[in-house]
Amino acid sequence: MNWYQKEITLKLRGRGFHLVTDEIVGQIPEIKEIKVGLLHIHIKHTSASLTLNENYDPDVRSDMEEYFSRTVKENEPWYDHNSEGSDDMPAHIKSTLIGSSLTIPITNGTLNLGTWQGIYLCEHRNHAGSRKIVVTINGE
Amino acid sequence: MNWYQKEITLKLRGRGFHLVTDEIVGQIPEIKEIKVGLLHIHIKHTSASLTLNENYDPDVRSDMEEYFSRTVKENEPWYDHNSEGSDDMPAHIKSTLIGSSLTIPITNGTLNLGTWQGIYLCEHRNHAGSRKIVVTINGE
Amino acid sequence: MNWYQKEITLKLRGRGFHLVTDEIVGQIPEIKEIKVGLLHIHIKHTSASLTLNENYDPDVRSDMEEYFSRTVKENEPWYDHNSEGSDDMPAHIKSTLIGSSLTIPITNGTLNLGTWQGIYLCEHRNHAGSRKIVVTINGE
Repeated sequence: MNWYQKEITLKLRGRGFHLVTDEIVGQIPEIKEIKVGLLHIHIKHTSASLTLNENYDPDVRSDMEEYFSRTVKENEPWYDHNSEGSDDMPAHIKSTLIGSSLTIPITNGTLNLGTWQGIYLCEHRNHAGSRKIVVTINGE
Repeated sequence: MNWYQKEITLKLRGRGFHLVTDEIVGQIPEIKEIKVGLLHIHIKHTSASLTLNENYDPDVRSDMEEYFSRTVKENEPWYDHNSEGSDDMPAHIKSTLIGSSLTIPITNGTLNLGTWQGIYLCEHRNHAGSRKIVVTINGE
Repeated sequence: MNWYQKEITLKLRGRGFHLVTDEIVGQIPEIKEIKVGLLHIHIKHTSASLTLNENYDPDVRSDMEEYFSRTVKENEPWYDHNSEGSDDMPAHIKSTLIGSSLTIPITNGTLNLGTWQGIYLCEHRNHAGSRKIVVTINGE
């Protein structure tokens, strides 16, 4: 196998930072066939994002949500893009600050992450639908 | 075809966030030959950046410019790197906050972006020259 | 050669933004064998990060450290994740703001960076150990 690609719909989640490593990896057993390669994960939305961060203490995720929501405020008087709700323009900004995709090395059939690294879905809207991601595996 | 690479000079633009999906995609028809793969876009500068965000309402782009320019201020008294103009050090910081490259999945000959996703050139200098990007396609 | 992968331990460094292009490139001579391809660099930690930025004036690196440390403050009263020291939660936030990996085009045996671009290790902890990165080269 050289290339493998799949679209995955993540479980519906509320606003916040969520650990989704197991949900994603569990749906791509093809990783096990790769000795050396890369996994690319792309989120098809502009008001949610993906990052790698600490996979152990849930307080890291809630502090992260609080940091971004304090830093990128709702209802700034100078926002012109207001028609989709007060959480929408901040969600676009957070999406650009954090990023829409991750590329992770694969080594001997598993993701070569650090001990404390996990994949976060960062949901920036209060009431979004399920988020779609595209996973692409390339390796040998 | 397995690998394809090309350097592209983007049209000159002023400071701000600009939608450049069509300008880039129009210059790499090789995407059509790829069933499964990835497009990588790299900007060869440290005072401009690339992101994916909302491709419809131009207010998102101008609010984004305003957010980053309010957050990363010019003329901070503690900046030591001042010799290239008051917009230069903020441009470097914005470039690191947003990022220098994008990786986007290719599926059946087209970029597999969400309905509302487009590629932004983020120009952080007031009077920059044309920006150069390197596009690399890998797929089968 | 199609795929090459290696784990590298970077020299121990203090808190701050450090130029590490030569240290990394010097350990992967395999780049020279690639005509067209990509280099992926992943840091296996959640309190340090990687970015591309200006490779000439060291003031850019110290201003960058100051910007991030002023923006993501220590000892915020609302942090719940405090058990690992006052620099720990800010380090996690900076890691997500900046990112854990870089993908850089390879052209004719060298990294196709802009004249002023270099690879930064961003060390966000006061007293961290040596940082491990995984480099993956794919090309032809």
